[in-house]
Amino acid sequence: MQNASLTILGCGSSLPTRKNFPSAQILEIRDKQFLIDCGEGTQIRMRQMGVKTNRLGHVFISHLHGDHCFGLIGLISSFGMLNRTADLHIHAQADLEKILEPQLAYFCAELPFKVVFHAINPRKHELIFEDRSVQVFSIPLKHRVPCCGFLFEEKPRDRHIIREMIDFYNIPTWRIPKIKQGEDFITEEGEVISNADLTISSEVPKRFAYCSDTAYSEKIVPIVQGVDCLYHEATFMEDELLRSKQTQHSTARQAAEIAKLANVKKLIIGHYSARYSNQNELLREAQLVFENTILGEDMTVYEI
Amino acid sequence: MQNASLTILGCGSSLPTRKNFPSAQILEIRDKQFLIDCGEGTQIRMRQMGVKTNRLGHVFISHLHGDHCFGLIGLISSFGMLNRTADLHIHAQADLEKILEPQLAYFCAELPFKVVFHAINPRKHELIFEDRSVQVFSIPLKHRVPCCGFLFEEKPRDRHIIREMIDFYNIPTWRIPKIKQGEDFITEEGEVISNADLTISSEVPKRFAYCSDTAYSEKIVPIVQGVDCLYHEATFMEDELLRSKQTQHSTARQAAEIAKLANVKKLIIGHYSARYSNQNELLREAQLVFENTILGEDMTVYEI
Repeated sequence: MQNASLTILGCGSSLPTRKNFPSAQILEIRDKQFLIDCGEGTQIRMRQMGVKTNRLGHVFISHLHGDHCFGLIGLISSFGMLNRTADLHIHAQADLEKILEPQLAYFCAELPFKVVFHAINPRKHELIFEDRSVQVFSIPLKHRVPCCGFLFEEKPRDRHIIREMIDFYNIPTWRIPKIKQGEDFITEEGEVISNADLTISSEVPKRFAYCSDTAYSEKIVPIVQGVDCLYHEATFMEDELLRSKQTQHSTARQAAEIAKLANVKKLIIGHYSARYSNQNELLREAQLVFENTILGEDMTVYEI
Repeated sequence: MQNASLTILGCGSSLPTRKNFPSAQILEIRDKQFLIDCGEGTQIRMRQMGVKTNRLGHVFISHLHGDHCFGLIGLISSFGMLNRTADLHIHAQADLEKILEPQLAYFCAELPFKVVFHAINPRKHELIFEDRSVQVFSIPLKHRVPCCGFLFEEKPRDRHIIREMIDFYNIPTWRIPKIKQGEDFITEEGEVISNADLTISSEVPKRFAYCSDTAYSEKIVPIVQGVDCLYHEATFMEDELLRSKQTQHSTARQAAEIAKLANVKKLIIGHYSARYSNQNELLREAQLVFENTILGEDMTVYEI
């Protein structure tokens, strides 16, 4: 069974640096890929890492600053050249469609697939996507422009049936799916076999939250409570607290405070200002508050 | 005295690869920088190479395929964040302004500098830019969409005055500029001193031509005749001759044929299809026809 993973393509902020491209990451969960933000160079990083994107169907854009969406047109254009046929769904604020459509019409007139826009309201915490195995919720953030993060939640997997019990009770194949979903089994003699005797619980569903860009905001704490992994921006260190407030970004310490308050299992920081050449200082600042902090790095895969 | 140089930021084609970003290069000549094409990631490559762009005033876009212009919005946006104040001039087909303006209005509403569009007609060979020391001409190319290359020509520099002659003839300072431009000097006694006795010739003006994207076209030969350096696309090798014709690109051999016919001093090839993992094969194919061929590579500086 494949685990969930996060591939960071870029975790820089508005100005790219030698190390960091602007924001983009791929969440792989339940054999699907979700692209979160798509800064300039996203498709380049995918190429550099050899990421195959055939299971990528949905893109989520946090807000309409260039470092979070300038890579879309290039990505879509290249998907066209690679003869992608599956629809590509883009979940973003409605303005994005207005901005992208003329570009698509000009540069990608004969796309072999459909680009489907889904407008999201960044001010609301609500379910914005759902399929058989995953749910995605918006997380209103506090930034200079309307902006939201995303909470990805696996739906519970089917329980594992105990093979010996199938044999012992002669359970017909057609009953198995329902039992995996929690039903009891009634034998031909009318005896009720409790589901608890037939199955064992499956893996606990994973939860991942992406919160960028945002000033310190405790309002998100209940939403990201206990997630397996929180990606939280840490544009600045405490030495630039004033600037972080002016620009509505967070410091590394603040990201860690949120992680601690929300009791998350793991914090990945990113969206570093280009001014910090030694990012380990950001990591240390965060780890003083929340020990299980990991330094986000471009072209790196993290287990969730 | 600084020589002319070409910095290749990206010399890939439509699909980026591990090695190659899409098209972008900077010509430095007479202490000025000219950006030629601006594919996605141009600003990233600048950062990776530590290129300072304070002498960059003019951008030339060959045609409106994404791999030649998707990097513009990110570049301009970042220039804004870096508080650039000097106007940025973009020379491109008129459609580019229509496509970029809405993006600039949305993402770069408060730019501290002006973006000035200059429409060029890619079907004509004509002077499209001129300042004190450089002229730029369009070169009509043969591609699936209207497309032109660019010929950069240094204007002749002033002649070098021979210092001893200034002393010998007691030449007043105010006469010197004219003498450098070729005037004779008349002494107080009315003696005419020929300019040839007072000065020596300066460096021969440099000429650089950029021809991408284009099918094989001998029409460009008279225009690029004898240039110091020709950058010519070589998307394919001869094994893909048919495909090169269908897509209106050149093979490495064809690029070399043009270089040979035009008797250029040096050929740099680029715009490689992603299919060629060993680009030295393209180089070898070209060198069989034109020996002084150089393999264009990302993040490399070439003397002109």
